[in-house]
Amino acid sequence: MLLSQIKGPGDLKSCSIEELTPLAADIRQFLIEKLSVTGGHLAPNLGVVELTIALHYCYNSPRDKFIFDVGHQAYVHKILTGRMDRFDTLRMKDGLCGFVKRCESEHDVWEAGHSSTSLSAAMGMALARDLKGEDHKVIAIIGDGALTGGMAFEALNHIGHEKKDLMVILNDNEMSIAPNVGAMHNYLTKIRSDRNYLRAKDEVEQLLKRIPAVGGKLAKTAEKLKDSLKYMMVSGVLFEELGFKYLGPVDGHDLPGLIDSFKQANNVSGPVLVHVLTTKGKGYTPAEEDSFKWHGISTPYKIESGQLLKAVGNPTYTDVFGKTLIELAEEDERIVAVTPAMPGGSGLVKFGERFPGRMIDVGIAEQHAATMCAALAMEGLKPVFAVYSTFMQRAYDQIVHDICRHNANVMFAIDRAGFVGADGETHQGVFDIAFLRHIPNMVLMMPKDENELRHMMKTALEYNDGPIGFRYPRINVPGVPLDAELVPLPIGSWEILRDGDGPIIIAVGPMVQVAEAAADTLKREGVQAAVVNARFLKPLDEEMLMELARRNQHMIVLEEASQAGSLGSAVLEFYAQRDLSGLDISLMGVPDRFIEHGSINEQLEEVGLTAEDVVRNVHKHRAGQSLRLAKE
Amino acid sequence: MLLSQIKGPGDLKSCSIEELTPLAADIRQFLIEKLSVTGGHLAPNLGVVELTIALHYCYNSPRDKFIFDVGHQAYVHKILTGRMDRFDTLRMKDGLCGFVKRCESEHDVWEAGHSSTSLSAAMGMALARDLKGEDHKVIAIIGDGALTGGMAFEALNHIGHEKKDLMVILNDNEMSIAPNVGAMHNYLTKIRSDRNYLRAKDEVEQLLKRIPAVGGKLAKTAEKLKDSLKYMMVSGVLFEELGFKYLGPVDGHDLPGLIDSFKQANNVSGPVLVHVLTTKGKGYTPAEEDSFKWHGISTPYKIESGQLLKAVGNPTYTDVFGKTLIELAEEDERIVAVTPAMPGGSGLVKFGERFPGRMIDVGIAEQHAATMCAALAMEGLKPVFAVYSTFMQRAYDQIVHDICRHNANVMFAIDRAGFVGADGETHQGVFDIAFLRHIPNMVLMMPKDENELRHMMKTALEYNDGPIGFRYPRINVPGVPLDAELVPLPIGSWEILRDGDGPIIIAVGPMVQVAEAAADTLKREGVQAAVVNARFLKPLDEEMLMELARRNQHMIVLEEASQAGSLGSAVLEFYAQRDLSGLDISLMGVPDRFIEHGSINEQLEEVGLTAEDVVRNVHKHRAGQSLRLAKE
Repeated sequence: MLLSQIKGPGDLKSCSIEELTPLAADIRQFLIEKLSVTGGHLAPNLGVVELTIALHYCYNSPRDKFIFDVGHQAYVHKILTGRMDRFDTLRMKDGLCGFVKRCESEHDVWEAGHSSTSLSAAMGMALARDLKGEDHKVIAIIGDGALTGGMAFEALNHIGHEKKDLMVILNDNEMSIAPNVGAMHNYLTKIRSDRNYLRAKDEVEQLLKRIPAVGGKLAKTAEKLKDSLKYMMVSGVLFEELGFKYLGPVDGHDLPGLIDSFKQANNVSGPVLVHVLTTKGKGYTPAEEDSFKWHGISTPYKIESGQLLKAVGNPTYTDVFGKTLIELAEEDERIVAVTPAMPGGSGLVKFGERFPGRMIDVGIAEQHAATMCAALAMEGLKPVFAVYSTFMQRAYDQIVHDICRHNANVMFAIDRAGFVGADGETHQGVFDIAFLRHIPNMVLMMPKDENELRHMMKTALEYNDGPIGFRYPRINVPGVPLDAELVPLPIGSWEILRDGDGPIIIAVGPMVQVAEAAADTLKREGVQAAVVNARFLKPLDEEMLMELARRNQHMIVLEEASQAGSLGSAVLEFYAQRDLSGLDISLMGVPDRFIEHGSINEQLEEVGLTAEDVVRNVHKHRAGQSLRLAKE
Repeated sequence: MLLSQIKGPGDLKSCSIEELTPLAADIRQFLIEKLSVTGGHLAPNLGVVELTIALHYCYNSPRDKFIFDVGHQAYVHKILTGRMDRFDTLRMKDGLCGFVKRCESEHDVWEAGHSSTSLSAAMGMALARDLKGEDHKVIAIIGDGALTGGMAFEALNHIGHEKKDLMVILNDNEMSIAPNVGAMHNYLTKIRSDRNYLRAKDEVEQLLKRIPAVGGKLAKTAEKLKDSLKYMMVSGVLFEELGFKYLGPVDGHDLPGLIDSFKQANNVSGPVLVHVLTTKGKGYTPAEEDSFKWHGISTPYKIESGQLLKAVGNPTYTDVFGKTLIELAEEDERIVAVTPAMPGGSGLVKFGERFPGRMIDVGIAEQHAATMCAALAMEGLKPVFAVYSTFMQRAYDQIVHDICRHNANVMFAIDRAGFVGADGETHQGVFDIAFLRHIPNMVLMMPKDENELRHMMKTALEYNDGPIGFRYPRINVPGVPLDAELVPLPIGSWEILRDGDGPIIIAVGPMVQVAEAAADTLKREGVQAAVVNARFLKPLDEEMLMELARRNQHMIVLEEASQAGSLGSAVLEFYAQRDLSGLDISLMGVPDRFIEHGSINEQLEEVGLTAEDVVRNVHKHRAGQSLRLAKE
């Protein structure tokens, strides 16, 4: 059977097991070729080729529900369910989504992007199945990294108790995005290394028989001992103690072995966990050798050499953050960096090499990370919680209850703030202003360029009155000159970048450049716009806001963030609290819907956050004014 | 040593172990008497009397850090650290806090209120200690219920990996607030029941010796078998697998035994978990017999009979919710109730009795609960996630990523919205509007009375276009007549309750009654205020807002919620988005700080949300207007 002949999982079932092995090779070839043009999550998908084939071979999707945790490892699933011809558009606007997507296929039953949700989803589907009297299978496929997320444990704890029929496939590749940390990881490693030994189960049975029969006081002990023994010799005690039947470990690249394990699993009633060992990047040498780098690549590459074809450009904000943090940490011993399994994405790899004891990777565990930071701060250190805006959502309660309520001196380095491009709607960093701004004691900044980011980091370091965050986007920096000396900014200070008697554009972050471009256009039309860099999202620059109010000019608040609850909203509240009515304020932000994948620029265009949109807004507003004047 | 002579933990250390036992009895007597007047968390504190004495006897607080999870079981700690004379003011405004409170004592090092934070806090403190080269003990005291919270597992996973010196005391009373559920609970029960058996460790050694020596192929197996066996016969394999040294189980009411265990624990390097078995309510028969009821009591009681002296009054909103949900579930099979360990507090006990299969208690696991609800909804059921506003914070990411992004038909029953009184700042339900309003697809309501709550529940049930929530306060209902038939409200519809040409008070929830009272006062002064019931927080009643804008009257938005980001902010945004300037809108909400314990009325007075405050606002505003008019 050739790959091109597979139009859906049904076609797979007519294959013999022998035919499936060359199919796996074809799929790998396909992925390596297609992704060399589009980029994407290559290594995770190369790791699950046989696993996904075996699942579709043994089960009946969509009747049986496959729930892929995170969902970036579902490319093979997409190939096998009729979406092969869309891979040229992978992660592009209106193209194939990089994650599971319900609107793409009936075989996609659960969307994700954040990790550790699959077990809860599986439990919900199993409960619903039983309540409705249906009898299909529910199968969650979760990585060992995702298993460290607290909600996965909450689900294990519930599933193991309720004893619903449900299958968990633990895709153990010893990695989340970075190499895994944590006791669970150590435990799985132990199982891996015991693997050959454990094949000797028959021998254990023999040994058990050699224990002589005893009577009297020892009888009960001996009986229990025998029970315990058999149990002990099987791997996965930890999962068994939590109420799961454990099967494995199974070689995840051995198709017949996988199919066999699934058959065994089908005979188990109640929850079963199949421990599958896979190799990230399997079958493509560069990716096998550095699966960390090849987890997700955003650029094309040369297939033969594995060389990434990166566009030459300025460094990213993440790079500047990482570099500056090292500089600051050289001077200030209190700095400790905390990352939830993202040392690479957060630009902390070099920091960790320079200060191994002061770099703490907690695994996928944003809640624990945040609360631990509160305690570190209360003991006089300066923890820097480096986290993507979207993943910070996981720690909202801990930020409220443990950090802000304690008024602990935690620094937040909020990366990927604003649109994130190809990762799409699960990853957009557009809510953090709205979910942080209403928390008492919080200070929140966003720089207009890399030079200001560096000053903000200094500001945060020298601020000892509570939590303080700086957010920055997933883009390259503009490339401005860097000041030699880092000077703290006055808390709550904005700056007027250009002044004029036309509209006042109050912008933040990369929107400052958009505002400047709009002001340039307007200037050519004879309109002198003012541009304000609203670098503090909380507290606001009250003095400047009062001064601006007195001017009686049209104001536009421009931000790459949820229009509801973010900076625009803060400005309106400020004036309303002071009973300043009669001001003329327009809001430009992200509208009230989820924004799908595409390039960041396409996303900005889609929601109307370009310089042209600002100019259009000004024109429209002036036209409205003239109309009103004409009427009066 | 008499209790009255204990001024601090130092006094305890001069006691002999024999003297400590009567001290425990004195403390119990003290708690039973004091709480019979003030109410409070009686059962949890009676359970930890010996444990707390032993801790202060064996360790040196505040040098050694005691971290109480949740912190409602710290009354004994407060007694032993010089706060005995403040118990008459327990949980009252400006009185002794019901939780750990840093400003009260140097012995209080970590505040909480939400569960499962203690292990992360302990890890942070241990890391800081080692980075600073200090050498004190760090001790977390966590209940078996709190251990099911995902962040506790994230912390266990990290601690077990890092191998820091740190002690966890698992206070196992088989309860969180309700009886515990979950596989971890089953596991602990197994250890409890194996307890006597496990004393027979010596016997196991004997048995091991009876296994004859073997050679050849079996030799390695036999060797490993013997190792495993010893290991297996010890309890706590699960914790050992996660990198902890496990000690126990220990009788938590046997002072010498506890002191002995702590000595053993001190000899362990790396993380150690001491499993302590306690009885909630120990020493007071009514509380021992029904520790569920006696977990936290808000009223006085008769000591002899244990009779609670409840004020006679209307039922609570929680009662009405629970009763109505049963009515609806009789008619609609799709309804499934989901609670994170709060069946009692959420009014679901009777629902669970009536529909056992449709009531799902997941344990302390808000994240799992939310995501599971998304899956239930996607399979056609109508999950009702019943959760306190403050605990809903834990599920923010899951609400964004799993419920709202999937646009799943989940119903949220958000209890304890607004101020909560005696529980104070960790429990205030004042942020949910602000953290929910910016999430796309969300619909959010709040009723002005119990009759409207019932209609809202019907509204939510019949709404099949995505997530919908109704929030209600922790107070008694006003006692209005109930309509016989439940009719869905049009989504996004407000109502004008009284009209007038004076100020327009846009109010929500219990603030509607406040607005009515203010309007009555104003009427007596000749001012005809309008009162609007803004029962939909999202979407807003756009038509009505446009109509109100045309009237050019002063508007006041009145809400018992964070002024930042809540309804007031939504109204301002609405008008700004439509370029409607020149409106005169005042905001009355909860200011930007955490509000401490006291009665709900005291909290409302403190922040200025009474009818008198509304009237004062109107007067001030009219005075300002007159001034402006006079100037012109």
